[in-house]
Amino acid sequence: MSDLPAFDELLHDFELRKPRALARAISLAEAGRAGELVRAIYERTGRAMTMGLTGPPGVGKSTLASGLVRKARGLGKSVGVVSVDPSSPFSHGALLGDRIRLAEHFTDDEVFIRSMASRGHLGGLAGATADAVTLMDAFGFDVVLIETVGVGQSEVAIAELAQTTMVTLQPGSGDSIQVLKAGIMEIADIFVVNKADHPMAKQLQREIRSMMEMQQFTGWVPELVMTQALSGEGIDELWSAIERHNAYLNETGEIARHRRDAFTHRVRQLALGRLERRLDHALRAQTPADVDPYEAADRLLSQHFDDR
Amino acid sequence: MSDLPAFDELLHDFELRKPRALARAISLAEAGRAGELVRAIYERTGRAMTMGLTGPPGVGKSTLASGLVRKARGLGKSVGVVSVDPSSPFSHGALLGDRIRLAEHFTDDEVFIRSMASRGHLGGLAGATADAVTLMDAFGFDVVLIETVGVGQSEVAIAELAQTTMVTLQPGSGDSIQVLKAGIMEIADIFVVNKADHPMAKQLQREIRSMMEMQQFTGWVPELVMTQALSGEGIDELWSAIERHNAYLNETGEIARHRRDAFTHRVRQLALGRLERRLDHALRAQTPADVDPYEAADRLLSQHFDDR
Repeated sequence: MSDLPAFDELLHDFELRKPRALARAISLAEAGRAGELVRAIYERTGRAMTMGLTGPPGVGKSTLASGLVRKARGLGKSVGVVSVDPSSPFSHGALLGDRIRLAEHFTDDEVFIRSMASRGHLGGLAGATADAVTLMDAFGFDVVLIETVGVGQSEVAIAELAQTTMVTLQPGSGDSIQVLKAGIMEIADIFVVNKADHPMAKQLQREIRSMMEMQQFTGWVPELVMTQALSGEGIDELWSAIERHNAYLNETGEIARHRRDAFTHRVRQLALGRLERRLDHALRAQTPADVDPYEAADRLLSQHFDDR
Repeated sequence: MSDLPAFDELLHDFELRKPRALARAISLAEAGRAGELVRAIYERTGRAMTMGLTGPPGVGKSTLASGLVRKARGLGKSVGVVSVDPSSPFSHGALLGDRIRLAEHFTDDEVFIRSMASRGHLGGLAGATADAVTLMDAFGFDVVLIETVGVGQSEVAIAELAQTTMVTLQPGSGDSIQVLKAGIMEIADIFVVNKADHPMAKQLQREIRSMMEMQQFTGWVPELVMTQALSGEGIDELWSAIERHNAYLNETGEIARHRRDAFTHRVRQLALGRLERRLDHALRAQTPADVDPYEAADRLLSQHFDDR
């Protein structure tokens, strides 16, 4: 940001916890330009309890998120919500729907909800989301909830962003097979079977349990919670599971390891993004020579990246 | 390769067109160690007609591939086949099935079939596949056919590897929607509706046609071919469509643009792979400092990548 008075004003308003300053800051993150602000506020981070909610479209993530926000508010905690849908070309509609489901919290000053636009981020959606979580943490929310579509290799690595990762599955959808295939078992701290009144809910519960029996867990064993997000049933149990996991992280010191891993992941992401931009710049500037690709890559790296 | 006599012998046998030398070379590519060989043989490349066959699992790609190999052999052309399945955890079984379908060609010296193992490639599966295609081209095959699972952002960018890309779709599967969503329209030179005797085949044909009507094409307009790979029906028409596309590429000079793009893509892939390895090495060596991730990324880049 070249406009220094504007930056100072933004930082000042951010420190005064003005919601408009947070909104502006996240817009900067979406534009890949939040670096300076993140640097300025970084020492205020590390206080929020971060939780990620992931699962396939239609599973009821937004309704669950709304239930968790209500629960947190009942406990007197302030909540920031980051809602991300990296894949859907229909995300505008979906986000509108999400907003409607989260609407009861719109008039609550201690709840801030932000949908991340799905495309065209300089620095990538993953980077923008990471910055948004950092900004919400620094802003002073007690809880930061990240909601994102997808079980599987998502664009946004939710397990790096959230201390506690909830994987929501849908009865009768064959989701349990996805879990096995996509290595979800490794990222789920809590499994949520939503729509617990569905005729296939018990079967999904059994499938998850038998998959867990096949695994060797060292440390935390994922919990399984049955919910009916629409009626609010199971939200108390889900919150208790989150608190147990949080206590586990703190008691074992795992929380420090999680912070370190998340930090390294973000540094790698930032550095790699810049290297990629430099590489693409160098490739555009290159005059094609009559060489093989290995030789061309060698020359490119030695000319532009001081490769030894 | 440090073992120079072995390298010279491999190169010598490769130049004598010994199939074992090609097999060995592709194994080196899978291990991310084919660079020296690719350099040595690169000037022999650019003569093969390369074609890519992609589509979802179960669509009949291997049977189509077998039909295309038969057709090419009938025209007196030698054929190399690279079969890739980046995603499936069941690829061993699938590849075995592929091999059975392609078995009629096993005793033919002018056909070489290679399945790329699906995981654990240093330099990545995409890089190994690119090297395998280069090696087959240099080995002297008239036709190189690359078969890979998936419509969508595949790990292996088939359109960069093949001059002509065939996208195979399955009637009654909702595949046409996938095509729209995943930007397949931009990579398909030829659509293949396999299982043309399926009751929904005509409907899929109509859907593809109406999607094409919504597009503006400059230059080549994708062709649509109906096949029944099992009976061999439509293979002649498919081959004719491939030849028309090949003629189009040569007459317009587009083939040179394709070669340039593929070259740049491979150089980028090689350079980025090395930058990533350097970055990960630097990250492991880094002592965690009490800074924000942007500052940490800055330091990393200036210390290890001569960032100005």
